[in-house]
Amino acid sequence: MEYKFSNKLASLKPSAIREIFKSLSDPTIISFAAGNPSPLSFPVKDLADLSADIFANSAASALQYGTTEGYTPLRKAVEERLKNRFSINTNGNETIITTGGQQGIELACKALCNEGDAVICENPSFIGALNAFRSNGAQTIGVPLADEGIDPEKLEKTIISTPNAKILYLIPTFQNPAGVTSTLENRKKVYEIAKKYGIIIIEDNPYGELRFSGTDVPTYKSMDTENIVIYCSSFSKILSSGMRVGFVCGPEEIVSKMVVAKQVEDVHTNLFFQMLCHRFMTERDLDGHIAGIRKLYGEKCTLMLGELDKKMPKCIKYTRPEGGLFIWCTLPDGISSSEYIKAALSRKVAVVPGTAFNCDTEAPSDSFRLNYSMPSDEDIVKGVDILAKLAKEMFVK
Amino acid sequence: MEYKFSNKLASLKPSAIREIFKSLSDPTIISFAAGNPSPLSFPVKDLADLSADIFANSAASALQYGTTEGYTPLRKAVEERLKNRFSINTNGNETIITTGGQQGIELACKALCNEGDAVICENPSFIGALNAFRSNGAQTIGVPLADEGIDPEKLEKTIISTPNAKILYLIPTFQNPAGVTSTLENRKKVYEIAKKYGIIIIEDNPYGELRFSGTDVPTYKSMDTENIVIYCSSFSKILSSGMRVGFVCGPEEIVSKMVVAKQVEDVHTNLFFQMLCHRFMTERDLDGHIAGIRKLYGEKCTLMLGELDKKMPKCIKYTRPEGGLFIWCTLPDGISSSEYIKAALSRKVAVVPGTAFNCDTEAPSDSFRLNYSMPSDEDIVKGVDILAKLAKEMFVK
Repeated sequence: MEYKFSNKLASLKPSAIREIFKSLSDPTIISFAAGNPSPLSFPVKDLADLSADIFANSAASALQYGTTEGYTPLRKAVEERLKNRFSINTNGNETIITTGGQQGIELACKALCNEGDAVICENPSFIGALNAFRSNGAQTIGVPLADEGIDPEKLEKTIISTPNAKILYLIPTFQNPAGVTSTLENRKKVYEIAKKYGIIIIEDNPYGELRFSGTDVPTYKSMDTENIVIYCSSFSKILSSGMRVGFVCGPEEIVSKMVVAKQVEDVHTNLFFQMLCHRFMTERDLDGHIAGIRKLYGEKCTLMLGELDKKMPKCIKYTRPEGGLFIWCTLPDGISSSEYIKAALSRKVAVVPGTAFNCDTEAPSDSFRLNYSMPSDEDIVKGVDILAKLAKEMFVK
Repeated sequence: MEYKFSNKLASLKPSAIREIFKSLSDPTIISFAAGNPSPLSFPVKDLADLSADIFANSAASALQYGTTEGYTPLRKAVEERLKNRFSINTNGNETIITTGGQQGIELACKALCNEGDAVICENPSFIGALNAFRSNGAQTIGVPLADEGIDPEKLEKTIISTPNAKILYLIPTFQNPAGVTSTLENRKKVYEIAKKYGIIIIEDNPYGELRFSGTDVPTYKSMDTENIVIYCSSFSKILSSGMRVGFVCGPEEIVSKMVVAKQVEDVHTNLFFQMLCHRFMTERDLDGHIAGIRKLYGEKCTLMLGELDKKMPKCIKYTRPEGGLFIWCTLPDGISSSEYIKAALSRKVAVVPGTAFNCDTEAPSDSFRLNYSMPSDEDIVKGVDILAKLAKEMFVK
């Protein structure tokens, strides 16, 4: 029988990142292609101890169905942290637990967008979010991302020319893939524009805890006087990515719709690990643990930037992140990066092509993404060396 | 600001079951309203031991991102069980892990249905599935469910009069809410009709392992010569519901679309618990464990049916399940069950109104659902007594 698929999924291809991941089964490849946290960031001993205690004392509830909104003590602990760490006023908002940060983004779009509606995004942007919007039949419209954030004028023009725009999707801090953090001034302007046109902002902040240099910039949610920001984040980069525990803090009315949508997607998030997150947050030293991850990633990023500074030809530009997991590199003269990336892979170094992060899936890209959280120090030195030699051969006359 | 919601979610209300759950915080209420497995069905000691071992020896992979399709050894173990236990030929099919059985149902609809398409369901049917279809903008069209299954003639008429029907959703074994199991003869006829009209069958089989009397009826998937059946099930009723681990076995081409959709919903299912399920399946006595659950539920069902037989006025009809979790009761003369259910709740017994399971959300119902897996034996006796007295007062002149 010939199967017929829904229009919204028919066009959706498995992500380029996943395809690259599959090629990574070759252990001789140096991978800068990951989006994974370092396994050193998992507090294994503490999680094991708390887990044993949950099995011993709370198994009957931990293994049973829970509520869709999430485990109440965890929701409260997350709210407290949002207040204390990110100055987020949660009045008029609801905090729920999601199956990773990914689900929060997807549910927000499902609650707000009809097919044919548009989501305006930084270009480049996180492929998982772009595909979540597309899977709901929404268009993704890009506004170019610069070092200070997206250009407010271009944003306003795009909104005016996109009457069906419902959502503005932003990763303002340590952006994936670009690694840049938008300035406070930029955020204020962008917020005013969203407010003026009645556009809901999804603020995706999975890396917000991972600053290793510079100073924090206030989140959009902390300045959300109009209650138009849905804040999505997760424990993936600070406790465990494989456990799939994230959270959303957003306007009550919107979040209650997202809860209805979540109920039919997975009923609720793994309850045992929700309890584990709560126990870790309230009984162990979360801040001390995060400080360790920051130090680790700061050292790895410094190493990779140092190697790039030493070895890369000057015609290759790259961002200088103050946190997060990624450096974004751009080839000279708008040259498409696809040949370079293919050649790098044949020399056993994997990076992610910029095309994977394009709002317009057909557009070429002159860029690629480097990850520094996963490779060893030795591989960082060796891999950048290979990339730099290749760049000299290809782009230095 | 006034928020605008997507059309497909605007009409979706939180489920009636959830609302009833909220009223259950009163500990003096006897609840026959649950859909939960008994906590006695969780193999806590084994899960705790295996969990400690995973933390000790496999934490770096168990806590890291995994693949969207699921943990390969678990997928293989599930395939093996589908072959050996349910005679399912997995050739041409793919088995993936989902975040509970719920997600499999939702993804199947997302992959196949455009907004306005129709899903034909047994009436009554599982509210979580009905809402999953509605959340994808699909209509739910009911075909009345009788003791032997849905009437093939009515099904064919419904398909003919519903040109946009894409899916036939069935819970053929120990149906939720009705507790009935469709006959092999019925299944054969229904399968032929689906085949004739090119309709994909979702076979939802979360209770298939829970037979405590009678003999197994072959699954649709085991007779799926045309590869038109998507089989959804889960570990919720045999290991733990709170962990949210389910699985799907369906045509490769359809499942590959579901994987793309799953990737944007939650990236993958909690990997630690996938590994835990695999370890339990391959290193512990799953069949012995399930035998214990069957015995428990068989005793509870026998007790509840015995009390109903003894006390309920004859004008109240109810099904006699051979497995699963539910008994379905019907009032005489098509009287709406809403007054009776309200009066029962005021006497501290909670049941789920039949309206919650209607394909047509506006239709009344003369029925209600009783659960026997959760209440204690004492509460079963006491609760049925209250329900029977009330029924005598209201329906026996």
